[in-house]
Amino acid sequence: MTSLDAIVKNTHDKQPVVHFITNYVTANDCANMTLAAGALPIMADDIAEVEAIVGQASALVLNIGTLTQRTVASMLAAGKKANRQHIPIILDPVGVGASALRSETVAILMRELNFTIIKGNISEIKFLASGIASTSGVDAGSADIITEDTLDNGIDFARKCSKIAGAIIAITGPVDIVADAQNACIIRNGHPLMAKITGTGCMLGGLIGAYVAANPTMPLFACVAAVSALGICGERAYEKLAGCKNGLGSYRVHLLDAMASLDGACLNAKQKITQISSI
Amino acid sequence: MTSLDAIVKNTHDKQPVVHFITNYVTANDCANMTLAAGALPIMADDIAEVEAIVGQASALVLNIGTLTQRTVASMLAAGKKANRQHIPIILDPVGVGASALRSETVAILMRELNFTIIKGNISEIKFLASGIASTSGVDAGSADIITEDTLDNGIDFARKCSKIAGAIIAITGPVDIVADAQNACIIRNGHPLMAKITGTGCMLGGLIGAYVAANPTMPLFACVAAVSALGICGERAYEKLAGCKNGLGSYRVHLLDAMASLDGACLNAKQKITQISSI
Amino acid sequence: MTSLDAIVKNTHDKQPVVHFITNYVTANDCANMTLAAGALPIMADDIAEVEAIVGQASALVLNIGTLTQRTVASMLAAGKKANRQHIPIILDPVGVGASALRSETVAILMRELNFTIIKGNISEIKFLASGIASTSGVDAGSADIITEDTLDNGIDFARKCSKIAGAIIAITGPVDIVADAQNACIIRNGHPLMAKITGTGCMLGGLIGAYVAANPTMPLFACVAAVSALGICGERAYEKLAGCKNGLGSYRVHLLDAMASLDGACLNAKQKITQISSI
Repeated sequence: MTSLDAIVKNTHDKQPVVHFITNYVTANDCANMTLAAGALPIMADDIAEVEAIVGQASALVLNIGTLTQRTVASMLAAGKKANRQHIPIILDPVGVGASALRSETVAILMRELNFTIIKGNISEIKFLASGIASTSGVDAGSADIITEDTLDNGIDFARKCSKIAGAIIAITGPVDIVADAQNACIIRNGHPLMAKITGTGCMLGGLIGAYVAANPTMPLFACVAAVSALGICGERAYEKLAGCKNGLGSYRVHLLDAMASLDGACLNAKQKITQISSI
Repeated sequence: MTSLDAIVKNTHDKQPVVHFITNYVTANDCANMTLAAGALPIMADDIAEVEAIVGQASALVLNIGTLTQRTVASMLAAGKKANRQHIPIILDPVGVGASALRSETVAILMRELNFTIIKGNISEIKFLASGIASTSGVDAGSADIITEDTLDNGIDFARKCSKIAGAIIAITGPVDIVADAQNACIIRNGHPLMAKITGTGCMLGGLIGAYVAANPTMPLFACVAAVSALGICGERAYEKLAGCKNGLGSYRVHLLDAMASLDGACLNAKQKITQISSI
Repeated sequence: MTSLDAIVKNTHDKQPVVHFITNYVTANDCANMTLAAGALPIMADDIAEVEAIVGQASALVLNIGTLTQRTVASMLAAGKKANRQHIPIILDPVGVGASALRSETVAILMRELNFTIIKGNISEIKFLASGIASTSGVDAGSADIITEDTLDNGIDFARKCSKIAGAIIAITGPVDIVADAQNACIIRNGHPLMAKITGTGCMLGGLIGAYVAANPTMPLFACVAAVSALGICGERAYEKLAGCKNGLGSYRVHLLDAMASLDGACLNAKQKITQISSI
């Protein structure tokens, strides 16, 4: 796992531009988290400029929160340009299954684009795989959540999804899984408070974009590093809360502080990554 | 007032989904405040999905900040669906009177939809009632603000408004009033710094949505609880400022911390609610 | 420099309304920074209401981050109204040169509107002047950055730009320049961490809007004061970091705290403004 160092360091050294087409609720959080990781975010969603913007980027993040019919076309155009120039695309199918607009958009995007990584909670990823979801708001239905008890099934499911989707699959939850058709990693970093503030999922999508942009030859490993890194920041932010264990405002601040302070040594020391097969 | 406990507890226990069609300036603040209160926010404003989203929600919040012609139709469609499924709609007519777009939109919404609660500052509520406003930006004109001196008139006005509008009216200011045609409550919680950060009004709209979603049989009382609860958080956030009395950045953080820590016992202990007639 | 006092004080006393047509990434930051400076922000971008809104404002800020084709027309309509009523317009050409949409929009805006102040990094301002840019994301290409070594050229360039554009030019960087055709000021306040959080540039645009709105007869001086003021806040925020030098989450909080606490005496004491010729 020594090259976790390299993932983090490359991102700070290369300062890759990450193009986001994303929602207005957490765009600020995504921008700040991406900057804290050393990359340069740019948000742009008009059809008249997305191809030009992605042309200057090293990764594209498509997030369907607050999706509009207008931005579907922008996502498609940006995605096709990203595929042509061989830069990674990360799909964050927020709340897919909650509406026909989201579900049909994801279906179109998956048919028309080649994604490097698709990241979601178990409910979202299940919907992609099966067309049947139990999405409530944008959180995973509790019955579906991956825990130690359901882990083996989850890993198997993630690998199959990856095969079907032709993309690395990252499933977030109490335990996180990142897998392609052959390999899988389990990540046990993180803290439950992360689910109590808006945008941690979106921020993870951005962080994956940043790490993969700077480490394009090892997308699976970069994705694993991102999941572990944000989880570690979630743990450290909780430690900082000290006397105010419910302090969600402070928690947000500490989370960003932690990412800005995270280096490869810290990631190596605190990672709880288990490889299921060699990557 | 013992059931203030129940209002807070129900929200954390039931975790109701609250659908927002709202502005991009404070959407993040609204999402975090709603989460801190125990509910699950989802922001969605495209006409192609708002009916599906509201179909999964327990309350709908319509906020006309950064209104666009596109979202007027979305608000109408979502609102009609909410009325059909008998879930509460909260209207936050931000800056109504500042433009024909806002004023005409509010007129259409009030004609076409049944609101459970309409919340605004005195200027906004006056405009609704009279078609004549003194809106400057989105703050109440100072001449109109409800204080101890103007309280009796304010209560009378709120009751009349409620009768005309067919909705509970919440008027925010140095002293807050929540009233329906028969009943009124005065709430004296809060702190002047709340007006110095963006989004406290929008956050209150979201909090009302959360509390009413979890307590649908007692909307007046839930609304009173929300107004008092956010006010208490504003007071506690100020106490936390200690040596930095102008620290608006810290104040925002403390405000969210306070909501995440607020329980029924705290609300009971610190509420400054006066019932004018039985509710 | 005694009238720096007046600039700050006038803003808190007059509480001018500042109308923003801006991006959704940093709109919240802009609103809070504007409030912290004593002014009243209102964000509104629909063509159906921008003229009404700007009609109640004392300054208009046009920021082209997350520009859409829809808002180009809104910017034009609002700008023409602002010109007719003789209130200052501040242009923040975020990432101009990164796409034809942004570049053509800025060209149209500059042809159709009279700006009081145009603020950008050297890359953005160079693009305006020459049509040739080295924009990477929204940051200045490093070769172009104004430092002590390139300062004389920068001043000369800023003056020429001002003459061509017919507007005060503010160029931000490690050293900041504010100039019109005759006069120039160098501002050496600020801290490198300001570039590591999203929105400091946008917040500066808003702050300039607030100061110029309250001090319309001295736009050059108000602009210089705003650049220095935000820089001082950036310095003070860094001092507050104490044991957590990379704490970007805390840094954002401290930055807003600092602005809310800034008075004329502090600005006078900490300003590092050098006048190149009399203003």
